[in-house]
Amino acid sequence: MESFNNPSSRPGEPIRVAVDAMGGDHAPRETVRGAVAALDNHDMELLLVGDVGEVEAELDKYDLNGRAVKVVPSVGKIGDDEHPMHAFRRKPEASVIVGTRLVKGGEADVLVSLGSTGASMATAALVLGVMDGLERPCIGGPFLGLAPRTVLMDLGSNVDCRPSQLLNFAALGSVFAHRFLGTENPRVALLSVGSEQSKGNRQVQESYELFEQSHLNFVGNVEGMDFFNDKADVIVCDGFVGNILIKFTEGMGTALGGYLSRQLAPYMSEEQMKGVFSELWQTTNLPRTMGGPLFGVNGAVIVGHGSSRAEGVSGAINTAVRYVEMGLLDSMREELAEISRNGLTGDSR
Amino acid sequence: MESFNNPSSRPGEPIRVAVDAMGGDHAPRETVRGAVAALDNHDMELLLVGDVGEVEAELDKYDLNGRAVKVVPSVGKIGDDEHPMHAFRRKPEASVIVGTRLVKGGEADVLVSLGSTGASMATAALVLGVMDGLERPCIGGPFLGLAPRTVLMDLGSNVDCRPSQLLNFAALGSVFAHRFLGTENPRVALLSVGSEQSKGNRQVQESYELFEQSHLNFVGNVEGMDFFNDKADVIVCDGFVGNILIKFTEGMGTALGGYLSRQLAPYMSEEQMKGVFSELWQTTNLPRTMGGPLFGVNGAVIVGHGSSRAEGVSGAINTAVRYVEMGLLDSMREELAEISRNGLTGDSR
Repeated sequence: MESFNNPSSRPGEPIRVAVDAMGGDHAPRETVRGAVAALDNHDMELLLVGDVGEVEAELDKYDLNGRAVKVVPSVGKIGDDEHPMHAFRRKPEASVIVGTRLVKGGEADVLVSLGSTGASMATAALVLGVMDGLERPCIGGPFLGLAPRTVLMDLGSNVDCRPSQLLNFAALGSVFAHRFLGTENPRVALLSVGSEQSKGNRQVQESYELFEQSHLNFVGNVEGMDFFNDKADVIVCDGFVGNILIKFTEGMGTALGGYLSRQLAPYMSEEQMKGVFSELWQTTNLPRTMGGPLFGVNGAVIVGHGSSRAEGVSGAINTAVRYVEMGLLDSMREELAEISRNGLTGDSR
Repeated sequence: MESFNNPSSRPGEPIRVAVDAMGGDHAPRETVRGAVAALDNHDMELLLVGDVGEVEAELDKYDLNGRAVKVVPSVGKIGDDEHPMHAFRRKPEASVIVGTRLVKGGEADVLVSLGSTGASMATAALVLGVMDGLERPCIGGPFLGLAPRTVLMDLGSNVDCRPSQLLNFAALGSVFAHRFLGTENPRVALLSVGSEQSKGNRQVQESYELFEQSHLNFVGNVEGMDFFNDKADVIVCDGFVGNILIKFTEGMGTALGGYLSRQLAPYMSEEQMKGVFSELWQTTNLPRTMGGPLFGVNGAVIVGHGSSRAEGVSGAINTAVRYVEMGLLDSMREELAEISRNGLTGDSR
């Protein structure tokens, strides 16, 4: 493969990963534990952003053995219950803001955040800036263990979308599928209620035309069951539909665990079932185990699920390191520019 | 319970069930087999609508033992690939049209159709008429075996909806949950991406206000995972979201079967797994096993899944008989009228 120019990476040097140590339901205990564990897997420097006293108390639990860990002070955190924009102004030294500034200033190559996704997005948009052609960042990636190479965009950041926005999401997802997941010429599809062009709501019908005119490998509409049929590599919907689907899947995984434990009790021990269900849970909760990039911002930010334990934190750091290594940002900007050159954006859409 | 006035039912008399014998992927073999089996479960008269030669050839396979079965002739059927309105004009004697006319003319109390849902809907709307306040019929009902008392509306007939339409769906679903499923004062919720009123797309945010003003027991927004949390009895979304969810669930059930068969192989025999997976499949394919009413038309029509085998046909007939026995149509019209009286409908929404 050719080599890629990533402005924030320094070839041959360890990747500098900033982690919002205060973000997530189990911070800083689990964020620090997961981050320290990740040091074993990568040639990386760890920048733990948070309350110095709290973070150092957690760090004291581990034998760091001279590994590259730095604590970067911050003041306070932004909660899920806060309005992201208000909090951004009221708490300028909050951990997610300090962490994002490290990326902006070139002191870190990537930020991993397990805190409020809304706060991560707003902060990234304000501090790093949004790529030309987008109004706000978008989130996406594989969300089903049963279809680990199928990328769904958007997962919840843009609930009302014009066709041109969906096309931009498709372009970002296509780069991710190609470069991060290694899928050649990713098949892009619109999520709809039937495969024919005439099927779907107004948004999808208008988008169909636009997608057809684009340079993407558009294969048409897919339906809900097609997540399991390998019909497309990148499936595009607005964040309203995407968010409902991802939460539905999570809920179903948990509920199926309970259901199957009754069904399987005659055949297996509790211990054996535990193993099966833990696998099943991961299969329906992929984003919790690996996090996902914040697409469309001028810098690398990986968001993980707020409920992540140490394993989820390590998984998100793993995603972060690979994301930086691949240097996808330039390719993404280029894809968005291609759409713009073809005249497929604009207010009229 | 009080007794209900249902114009098409005749107290004390057997319920007259028309079945579109030609509808569905396995017609007329499976439709006839399922319909004949249903005769054992109910005090009913069976009207099989279809090609007389074909239907009688199927009937000859069974010992009817003097039971009440009549064949009503029709010519042709409307396929999934045909435009429902065009087909309605081109094939005026198609089985689903003849069957719907039996309901309209009072010769049958209910029609069961396993054929094209679009054709069933268009025919019902044209022949029976749509209730005041609706533009077209809507489909809904429980769709998850894991939540067998949670009604989802709409499942795919209305892909772009105004808030006032969603409110009408909610009213229909509420009557169904109360009367058919026996839920007292059903909790009605909007499907969204967060529980707060401010969360959701424009459609949901506008609907929230309207729902709050209505006489329904509106409990706010629910999210994707709340199908499994017993937070609401009737969950309302437009048919675009509903159709994606129902097909996603079906696909997931099938895919999970394959996944679990690998996981469970060490613990169970193939025969034992078959039993578990058959249960699991039903759990994720509820509408295939029981069918669902076409809501909002002036007559009783139950639509089943096109892929139904005899068991699915019997299940849909079972739903049909109960639906007629309960006489829900008047209650539904009354609910829609209540919304209209409160000024919560109209073009401005």
